[in-house]
Amino acid sequence: MDASVLLVTGIHGNERNGPWLLEQWQREAGLLQRPGLRVQSLLGNPPAYAKNLRYIDCDLNRSFSEELLQQSDASQLEVRRAQELIALHGPGGRQPMQVLLDLHSTTAPMGSCLVVYGERPADLALAAACQGQLGLPIYLHGSDPRQSGFMVSQWACGLVLEVGPVPQGVVAPLICQQTALGVASLLDLLSAAFRAPLRLPAQMVIHRHLRSLDLPRDAEGRPTACLHPERLRGDWRPLHHGDPLFLDPAGKTINFTGGDPGSLSTVFSNEAAYQEKQIALSLTRREQLPTSPGWALALTALLRGSTTC
Amino acid sequence: MDASVLLVTGIHGNERNGPWLLEQWQREAGLLQRPGLRVQSLLGNPPAYAKNLRYIDCDLNRSFSEELLQQSDASQLEVRRAQELIALHGPGGRQPMQVLLDLHSTTAPMGSCLVVYGERPADLALAAACQGQLGLPIYLHGSDPRQSGFMVSQWACGLVLEVGPVPQGVVAPLICQQTALGVASLLDLLSAAFRAPLRLPAQMVIHRHLRSLDLPRDAEGRPTACLHPERLRGDWRPLHHGDPLFLDPAGKTINFTGGDPGSLSTVFSNEAAYQEKQIALSLTRREQLPTSPGWALALTALLRGSTTC
Repeated sequence: MDASVLLVTGIHGNERNGPWLLEQWQREAGLLQRPGLRVQSLLGNPPAYAKNLRYIDCDLNRSFSEELLQQSDASQLEVRRAQELIALHGPGGRQPMQVLLDLHSTTAPMGSCLVVYGERPADLALAAACQGQLGLPIYLHGSDPRQSGFMVSQWACGLVLEVGPVPQGVVAPLICQQTALGVASLLDLLSAAFRAPLRLPAQMVIHRHLRSLDLPRDAEGRPTACLHPERLRGDWRPLHHGDPLFLDPAGKTINFTGGDPGSLSTVFSNEAAYQEKQIALSLTRREQLPTSPGWALALTALLRGSTTC
Repeated sequence: MDASVLLVTGIHGNERNGPWLLEQWQREAGLLQRPGLRVQSLLGNPPAYAKNLRYIDCDLNRSFSEELLQQSDASQLEVRRAQELIALHGPGGRQPMQVLLDLHSTTAPMGSCLVVYGERPADLALAAACQGQLGLPIYLHGSDPRQSGFMVSQWACGLVLEVGPVPQGVVAPLICQQTALGVASLLDLLSAAFRAPLRLPAQMVIHRHLRSLDLPRDAEGRPTACLHPERLRGDWRPLHHGDPLFLDPAGKTINFTGGDPGSLSTVFSNEAAYQEKQIALSLTRREQLPTSPGWALALTALLRGSTTC
């Protein structure tokens, strides 16, 4: 039996580029076809998409926690939608899918990247192979009490493809092209992994999530500085002790003082949707991670529905 | 008596850069002080700003039409707010202000520019002088049945300062700096114009609004192409017959075929807020406009509250 892949876009209704591709994929199903794969695509949050809002009641991509998924008579539209998606395509659902690819865009200057949640072998295999093919940076997001309930965490294998910078609410063709390129690579690799375990690069470079930084605020909670222009020139760049971090309205630079033994860099700088979460940017540590042949075996076993994985 | 200038920001609640400057201006009133001027600044749409939305019920900067301003028992929050601002600071208001400067930001690649509505002599004087000082492009917006009810149209003299590209919902320090530079120039010029008629450049370059273009759509109204990457490289650039305009999902370029005798260029390409208005971009014709000493006299007379203007 073929392996099943669920491709979701528009989990956030004001990220318009994935849904733009979705319309084309749904018109020409052949674009997503790969040997050994059964790929299904869907729009994550149709009501929010119709209103061009990130969400109606709450963030759908934080609504996949066990607690919310167990909630009976949930009043929030997104919690009900999360439950519906799990009932439909979750591991025990009516039409279960094995792999989830979740497409997002960001206002942050991040280019294309993969976001990996946790360190599950199958996820790491797919991410490492995709990095080997396209050179994308990988943001490894472990547990963060401020951020949980991500959709991919509920599937046995799942990655987020994140592309920016693009404002919310518009279709930008170069962002669409980058997204389509990432999707094509991931599907090619899943198809190959279904046939045989992938040959992974010996090393992968990951940016491990450390913590998020808020803007400086006054007693009433209002920001007293914004991100420094240097931080908006691009993410993934090193942030050293003493580097410009914030800029106050009088033009005074506030430097970064949080020393760290490893080499730090930033992600999600000025993501518009994170303003309400009080996240100005997130700090990561760049690491070389040796890959393991076991990862590729785990991905292949998972795709073949083997119980030995 | 000093001339009065009303500086508004946050007429659209998800344009965060003007309001960011406003907080600083309200802390340090001296920054807006100029000889001969009494400058007051305010936040245009506090409820929309609090929710980081362009508006709550309808677009405040389309709510200043005579019809809406006369509406009794208006149910829409923005219509009531427009009536309130007119009752407070309009020409016949309790604290009338003579000049309106309205600060906006856009997701379109426009840089800084001035938007002039109609061809009122005092507006043209201020815009021409500011162009002479900073070189900003000027978008001359005459009447367009699809777009009316702009705030500045209700004041005897008023301009919009528009700066982009910046996503909705974030503060970008370089956008703030450009905005502050524009405001400083406009206030300097109003202060000078209060003392004596401005010496205007002999010519000004304007981009006259012709019409707006929608994306191609299918029978159900869904877009079948997005703007071409060429169009997103920057606004104000010439658009010739045969130039790339749209890109369809299969990668086919749709060229511009609307010939025009003058030299055409684009503005507001991919402004996120205009997607719901079905405006992909607007077409303008670049013109050299000889200035008139009468414009500068009109501005000075207006600022001095003379009835002879």
